[in-house]
Amino acid sequence: MEFASDNTSGTAPEIMAALSAINAGYAPSYGTDPAMDRVRAMIREVFEAPEAAVYLVNNGTTANSLSLATYCPPWGAVYCHDTAHVELDECGAPEFFIGGGKLVKVPGEHGKMTPGALRTAIGATPQGFVHSVQRAVVTLTNTTEAGTVYSAAELSALCAVAKEFGLPVHLDGARFANALVSTNASPAEMSWKAGVDILSFGGTKNGCMGVEAVVLFDPAKAWEFELRRKRGGHLFSKHRYLSAQMEAYLTDDLWLRLARDANNRATELEAAILSAPGASPLYPREANMVFASLPRGRHRRAMAAGAHYYLWPHDATLDGPDDQPVSARFVCSWCTTEAEVDAFAALIHGRD
Amino acid sequence: MEFASDNTSGTAPEIMAALSAINAGYAPSYGTDPAMDRVRAMIREVFEAPEAAVYLVNNGTTANSLSLATYCPPWGAVYCHDTAHVELDECGAPEFFIGGGKLVKVPGEHGKMTPGALRTAIGATPQGFVHSVQRAVVTLTNTTEAGTVYSAAELSALCAVAKEFGLPVHLDGARFANALVSTNASPAEMSWKAGVDILSFGGTKNGCMGVEAVVLFDPAKAWEFELRRKRGGHLFSKHRYLSAQMEAYLTDDLWLRLARDANNRATELEAAILSAPGASPLYPREANMVFASLPRGRHRRAMAAGAHYYLWPHDATLDGPDDQPVSARFVCSWCTTEAEVDAFAALIHGRD
Amino acid sequence: MEFASDNTSGTAPEIMAALSAINAGYAPSYGTDPAMDRVRAMIREVFEAPEAAVYLVNNGTTANSLSLATYCPPWGAVYCHDTAHVELDECGAPEFFIGGGKLVKVPGEHGKMTPGALRTAIGATPQGFVHSVQRAVVTLTNTTEAGTVYSAAELSALCAVAKEFGLPVHLDGARFANALVSTNASPAEMSWKAGVDILSFGGTKNGCMGVEAVVLFDPAKAWEFELRRKRGGHLFSKHRYLSAQMEAYLTDDLWLRLARDANNRATELEAAILSAPGASPLYPREANMVFASLPRGRHRRAMAAGAHYYLWPHDATLDGPDDQPVSARFVCSWCTTEAEVDAFAALIHGRD
Amino acid sequence: MEFASDNTSGTAPEIMAALSAINAGYAPSYGTDPAMDRVRAMIREVFEAPEAAVYLVNNGTTANSLSLATYCPPWGAVYCHDTAHVELDECGAPEFFIGGGKLVKVPGEHGKMTPGALRTAIGATPQGFVHSVQRAVVTLTNTTEAGTVYSAAELSALCAVAKEFGLPVHLDGARFANALVSTNASPAEMSWKAGVDILSFGGTKNGCMGVEAVVLFDPAKAWEFELRRKRGGHLFSKHRYLSAQMEAYLTDDLWLRLARDANNRATELEAAILSAPGASPLYPREANMVFASLPRGRHRRAMAAGAHYYLWPHDATLDGPDDQPVSARFVCSWCTTEAEVDAFAALIHGRD
Repeated sequence: MEFASDNTSGTAPEIMAALSAINAGYAPSYGTDPAMDRVRAMIREVFEAPEAAVYLVNNGTTANSLSLATYCPPWGAVYCHDTAHVELDECGAPEFFIGGGKLVKVPGEHGKMTPGALRTAIGATPQGFVHSVQRAVVTLTNTTEAGTVYSAAELSALCAVAKEFGLPVHLDGARFANALVSTNASPAEMSWKAGVDILSFGGTKNGCMGVEAVVLFDPAKAWEFELRRKRGGHLFSKHRYLSAQMEAYLTDDLWLRLARDANNRATELEAAILSAPGASPLYPREANMVFASLPRGRHRRAMAAGAHYYLWPHDATLDGPDDQPVSARFVCSWCTTEAEVDAFAALIHGRD
Repeated sequence: MEFASDNTSGTAPEIMAALSAINAGYAPSYGTDPAMDRVRAMIREVFEAPEAAVYLVNNGTTANSLSLATYCPPWGAVYCHDTAHVELDECGAPEFFIGGGKLVKVPGEHGKMTPGALRTAIGATPQGFVHSVQRAVVTLTNTTEAGTVYSAAELSALCAVAKEFGLPVHLDGARFANALVSTNASPAEMSWKAGVDILSFGGTKNGCMGVEAVVLFDPAKAWEFELRRKRGGHLFSKHRYLSAQMEAYLTDDLWLRLARDANNRATELEAAILSAPGASPLYPREANMVFASLPRGRHRRAMAAGAHYYLWPHDATLDGPDDQPVSARFVCSWCTTEAEVDAFAALIHGRD
Repeated sequence: MEFASDNTSGTAPEIMAALSAINAGYAPSYGTDPAMDRVRAMIREVFEAPEAAVYLVNNGTTANSLSLATYCPPWGAVYCHDTAHVELDECGAPEFFIGGGKLVKVPGEHGKMTPGALRTAIGATPQGFVHSVQRAVVTLTNTTEAGTVYSAAELSALCAVAKEFGLPVHLDGARFANALVSTNASPAEMSWKAGVDILSFGGTKNGCMGVEAVVLFDPAKAWEFELRRKRGGHLFSKHRYLSAQMEAYLTDDLWLRLARDANNRATELEAAILSAPGASPLYPREANMVFASLPRGRHRRAMAAGAHYYLWPHDATLDGPDDQPVSARFVCSWCTTEAEVDAFAALIHGRD
Repeated sequence: MEFASDNTSGTAPEIMAALSAINAGYAPSYGTDPAMDRVRAMIREVFEAPEAAVYLVNNGTTANSLSLATYCPPWGAVYCHDTAHVELDECGAPEFFIGGGKLVKVPGEHGKMTPGALRTAIGATPQGFVHSVQRAVVTLTNTTEAGTVYSAAELSALCAVAKEFGLPVHLDGARFANALVSTNASPAEMSWKAGVDILSFGGTKNGCMGVEAVVLFDPAKAWEFELRRKRGGHLFSKHRYLSAQMEAYLTDDLWLRLARDANNRATELEAAILSAPGASPLYPREANMVFASLPRGRHRRAMAAGAHYYLWPHDATLDGPDDQPVSARFVCSWCTTEAEVDAFAALIHGRD
């Protein structure tokens, strides 16, 4: 009953197999391996973006920070949601890579910005006023940190606001696959067709060992990106092992199957939770995460029995009356089983 | 006949097996996995350093840059050899992580500093003079970039100079194992007993997929290091895959066997090269790299037949008379075979 | 009728005279001038802080940024008021000098934080959680950007919250003198006795040409501060001209007289404004700035007649109906005259 | 007998008078003062550069660092002379403002690079090789740190090398005026006509209180420069006092007269020194600085009598035999008198 995070899961068997397969013999290092050529071609095809520059790094913080630094000068403002990973969970990595910068928080329910709130936030940064940081880039997250999903139309509306101000858009897609299978949109519609300029395309949380692609739909800054990656210590030496993961991930739609499995388990888990006595939803469930409240006594019982997940927000606690509702985050991954969901359901429903 | 670099090699079978083995089930992320506890204990034992703080990252540039930044303030001077990897091959990563700083080059034959040259370089940075960068840290490399090896006594003499000035010492040990098996010293003698404060302990070039340990013999700055690692994007999410590599690497002295194999192949290769007509050594061969000159015509023949290695230095060229000597770097790795060495020998000896 | 800012004023005659007087002959450069020794002694006496380290720089952005960088590591959080100068008016200078960092905004009415809001903000930064920036320093502003003043007791209460969390406190005292004469407290009570660790002690806005002192009540980081000042380009070459300003400023309580004059003019201006038809206060007036609303028509008339001041906030506009109230900021300085106040009063009261 | 530095001198009377004159009344702040408009026009005229962007800061370290940062990305190489002020005397300020970067030292006699040495240095930075810092900008110094002067032709030849590689050129002109009057060239010939893109135009060392202009002959990066200046804390608040200095400095060729006086005193001082028994020149004297050796006993006598200057290099010492030659640097400024030179001559010639 592991629902703590999608990064406590292992590597999908197809991806482990690909790592073993690519291990034979010598291969050029530092991204010049033939597998990287195949990966580049696959990503361009998946995204219908034949000109895109594609790079691999090994986690999301890196993909995000390098992307933002590529588009934000040291005196720039990055507009992000209040609860964005770049703001809360990266120990100031974006500011480190940017060499300063300022993350400007945009409020919004359920982890999502509205076009109006974004417009207000950007507008509040004085333009051409030397005493202020300067408007630089908008970053969106899909799947959001609240487990909700922007539709292609919602993304387009937000990107349109960025474009009103002439700003580029970054998309943190650590859970891009989960968002994609939650909608009927294509990868292109969920990225550049909506107005996204640079994408962190996640693999790690969805069954890879540790790989994310950064996709620059406009390749103008590709060389700068390569230099930033190298000097950040993020140019993998034996690069074939990043390539192999991403190649396997994209082959035969493995990435979509893994994400669909995760989302399906979350759907089942949500049903199990919300039917428990005293339960209530915190945010709409739209991908692979469930945010909901349960009476504290039920959390205690589940955790005592080995269920692993986090109360939400960070400062929530198990101390207090049994019947008081306490909210929590439950994450399903590509390898969450129906049995785990059922076992958890039994616990919180009190069916011992 | 691959002698271009030790990073064109693959992953040793024992390490691939460990990755597969650790893949089952869930594991805590971000370095809290049980395998990391085992790795920490093993490294402390190998280095006879029960208090050392140990962290894993996935390449040498990162290990070096984080180490230097931990000991060098933004206005500090780092003393390194003229040809150090940190100076020539990291695209300014040390300066990025330090937030400025200045690498001060110490000259020396065969990739090695002498105590006198180091003392002169440190002494030339004015002390307590606010207009100058301030003396901060000495960084040594063993195996050096010229393929030579500092003995424990030589390391001690250099560290003693650093200590004269109260400076800490970093050791870039991307090829630490190759240096170790080239001497009769222990890991402790080749590091903290000689005066090294922080060590980049290489795995990648010696049969790992991508992992280096950073060993802080004085753990006082451990938490700072953790924060620097995170904000640099170098805290691996599914960390068990770094741990598993390092665990297998250290198990049953695999790391020493791999390094010994590489060094032995280099010994054979050196003999083959130096017995070729017109050949001469460039630097003493003491680990897994051979630097030597061959008549240009012999390079041409070898390369035409598929031998892969780099002329040295970077701007050397195949253009010119056949009988003119041109130097080159030949690297052997854990997986270089005797057959490869023999085939190359045949080529350059003209035994078709 | 100049009420735009206290930095449109010139230099007080006593200070200009001191600059001329110190011009004769040669003087040691870079802060080793005898006048600096006198300044150091005077500031230590004024603040009853015989151990304090004292440095001069030439503007407030610099004093603040160097101070924060001295106490905040690159991965640290700086707690400041929503409207703090460091957040809104320094183009990201604090983040530049810190080498990253994150300014965390603390809300509060009338430009002032409450202890509760500060405690909440600090508490919301997870402690010892490597994914988050780390709690580093609290910065307060007195006189605040809203023209209000923290009493010594209020400062103490805020500093006490910082100390609960073990955090040092910086005080942005660009208008320290105006705050001081507005209370009955001593310089020590308004700084280190309240818990302030490092102070930007303003001179420029209060009659100097361009000089601020940074006072480190704990001199432990004095040498680091000197290096940061130098590498920021802020070690003045012909330093005697900074010293002379500060010396004259502190001589015979000139600084207090200048601030008292400014505050008195603001008191008169406030009375004149608030007695105008349709006027209302925006914030309590406690030092040399008046924030108040007037019917738009009265602003138009005043500005047309040459009165110079800013509507508040930045996006307020003169466009719209005459009788609609629009707020504005009016700043008095050491050289504002009663005649200017009277002339302005006549305009807005419609006494032509 | 003050020959320690040109920054121990005071402010020229014409410049002090201008500061007093501009003090009356109110003036717009932050560079929008009318005097700045006049300064911009004057500099454009002096340099025959009607499109140039012109900014004022208050010292040379700042002018240099901001200039280099504007043209050098964080992963860039700056080519400078071994003994350049940016390398030796700015505590890493260029690296701070650049956000990393690497200063690559170009050797050369008498403080001057040759085109060949510059070409070699640039060529040694591998091009398009992601592991290396990238060629970014060349910085020259005129008057050099050795007191020698590049002619316009020499500057042109060096800039031509930079242009071969497509690199922009910065000129550190802290002593630009001294170089100019030492040749028959025009300001334009000594800057943009030779190929200089951005100039630190010094005032402080030549009679100003503390002001340098940065001249961007190509104004494309003007706004970026303004933002960098602000976030570095270098946008002067009461800016009129920078403008007034520069305006007076340029009025009626004051700057040229002051520099000519300094150079003339140095010519006289050189003659006095070199005619002393046991004296010999260290570098050719071409502007306002004399580098020469004297027997140690003569230094002792001069210093004991109150002569103030520095032995050269930093680690030279008065300890040792009387007749041993020791070299020193002697700097004349706009206010050095013939009487000072004569008094010093008498001392070292032993005419008591």
